[in-house]
Amino acid sequence: MTIQDRKAEDLTYGFVGLGLMGGSFAKGIRENILNKSQAQGKIYACDIQPAVLHASREQGVISRGFTLEETETMLSLCDFVFICLYPQATLDFIETHKNAFKPGAIITDISGVKSHIAQGLSKKLPNSVDFICGHPMAGSEKEGYGHASGKIFKDRNYILMPRKENTPEHLEFFKNLVTDLGFTRIIETDPITHDHKIAFTSQLCHVLAAALVDSAEDAHITAFGGGSFEDLTRIAMINAPLWTELFSANKQELLSHIEAFENSLEAIKKLIQDDNKTVMCRVLENVREKRIAMSRIELQDNSV
Amino acid sequence: MTIQDRKAEDLTYGFVGLGLMGGSFAKGIRENILNKSQAQGKIYACDIQPAVLHASREQGVISRGFTLEETETMLSLCDFVFICLYPQATLDFIETHKNAFKPGAIITDISGVKSHIAQGLSKKLPNSVDFICGHPMAGSEKEGYGHASGKIFKDRNYILMPRKENTPEHLEFFKNLVTDLGFTRIIETDPITHDHKIAFTSQLCHVLAAALVDSAEDAHITAFGGGSFEDLTRIAMINAPLWTELFSANKQELLSHIEAFENSLEAIKKLIQDDNKTVMCRVLENVREKRIAMSRIELQDNSV
Repeated sequence: MTIQDRKAEDLTYGFVGLGLMGGSFAKGIRENILNKSQAQGKIYACDIQPAVLHASREQGVISRGFTLEETETMLSLCDFVFICLYPQATLDFIETHKNAFKPGAIITDISGVKSHIAQGLSKKLPNSVDFICGHPMAGSEKEGYGHASGKIFKDRNYILMPRKENTPEHLEFFKNLVTDLGFTRIIETDPITHDHKIAFTSQLCHVLAAALVDSAEDAHITAFGGGSFEDLTRIAMINAPLWTELFSANKQELLSHIEAFENSLEAIKKLIQDDNKTVMCRVLENVREKRIAMSRIELQDNSV
Repeated sequence: MTIQDRKAEDLTYGFVGLGLMGGSFAKGIRENILNKSQAQGKIYACDIQPAVLHASREQGVISRGFTLEETETMLSLCDFVFICLYPQATLDFIETHKNAFKPGAIITDISGVKSHIAQGLSKKLPNSVDFICGHPMAGSEKEGYGHASGKIFKDRNYILMPRKENTPEHLEFFKNLVTDLGFTRIIETDPITHDHKIAFTSQLCHVLAAALVDSAEDAHITAFGGGSFEDLTRIAMINAPLWTELFSANKQELLSHIEAFENSLEAIKKLIQDDNKTVMCRVLENVREKRIAMSRIELQDNSV
């Protein structure tokens, strides 16, 4: 029986990595999918930290934890696998374990860069499994399973990059699943567009937040904060190895957005230098209108 | 009887300008000070929009609205006056009405730049009134009385810049009042330090948010948003005339912070260009630690 003929609450879900994201998906599935009466489903997980598996098992989130040595045993049992690792580790994991997945399984990852994942997949994966490229636009500046929560997906965007190999039924199943977890807008695009857009909305923002904190004279500056600085720099409490990898993997796109930003900043700086209040006011009015339009689109429009 | 010998709930408060900030202070005073049983206090306000005065009177926030022609009548009745206007308008208002304040009154303003206000004051004000220079670090990207709320001060910073003319009793009274409104940290500094720090925490942040929105390819970008871009750019829904004035009034300080930020950004950009992952990871770790330290100081330390 194929996945789409079965109920989501009766499947076995496998997590490779039970950190902030893996843990949040596992909790979300436990709370929103497997909470149905007579649900037969299970959640399995493997992680390099045995203590995390133990805690999650104790909390009733996962049904069973697997050691790294038992990874392939776990994969052979799972109908739906979430690979919740860093980007390069995701590709390496698939390469190493490509023949261990259960035939008919859906596999997905959460990597924040997609072109090189998508390119690498076709060569690596057997035809018996269906890999759906997705990017859940949710997270936290706090890391690890201890901060995982099934609530972080509420009203968030999920970006899907369907591959020609994906069956329409699996895509439909996937969309229903993430909708049940709280995602309200599912965007479909391709990996190249994804990487271009994400370099702006996500990676550039992290670069700017990091530069802003870096340029602060001292850590006592928040005594003078009124919320703006705090909001702009919360994401500077950054997972340094992960974001180093993301910046590097999406280098060209990110650099082009940094340059566009620098041009906009330079133009505003020049208006301040020249004390050109008339044009400054017009620029700020335009920015205001553009940002208000973004909020409006965010609420109304699911097209890209 | 001087103000410090009277109860806060028995004073007459006057508002010059009943916009977002004036309206929020008026509501806060109504809800937190004048709600006491047997309170004798009143709230008066003048504003260029009669409809705002009418609405606020209807809501039971202000006790009486005054037309612009009646401004001096109002001032002559008020023990505590909040001037809630733009910076230059604040100075102009004081110049025009300096002799109309009630003797013994406390006056304060909310202007986001302070050096030129403080410099202008000594010449303008009679000795019979006590002007306390303050900057409430609270606000909203939404403007006007319609968005005013007594709740926006909760857990915020209030920056005070005591003048040699201020009596200790009046400063004490002021601090108690804003604490009752929800402010949890009162910082004392001088106007020059204020303008230097605020150029960083507030004006620079608005410049960066504006430049980021300006550099966005289109308004549909939020389909790819995961919260970071939204958090960084909320303040780009900016009150253009007000911020044009603030940028101009604090031009030199702001420019120096923009340049420091540009240097930090340039350094990070170079690491991305060179694909120098080792140093990038170290820089991001440092930024992370610095930002975490800021949060810790924010929670624990009221010294500057």
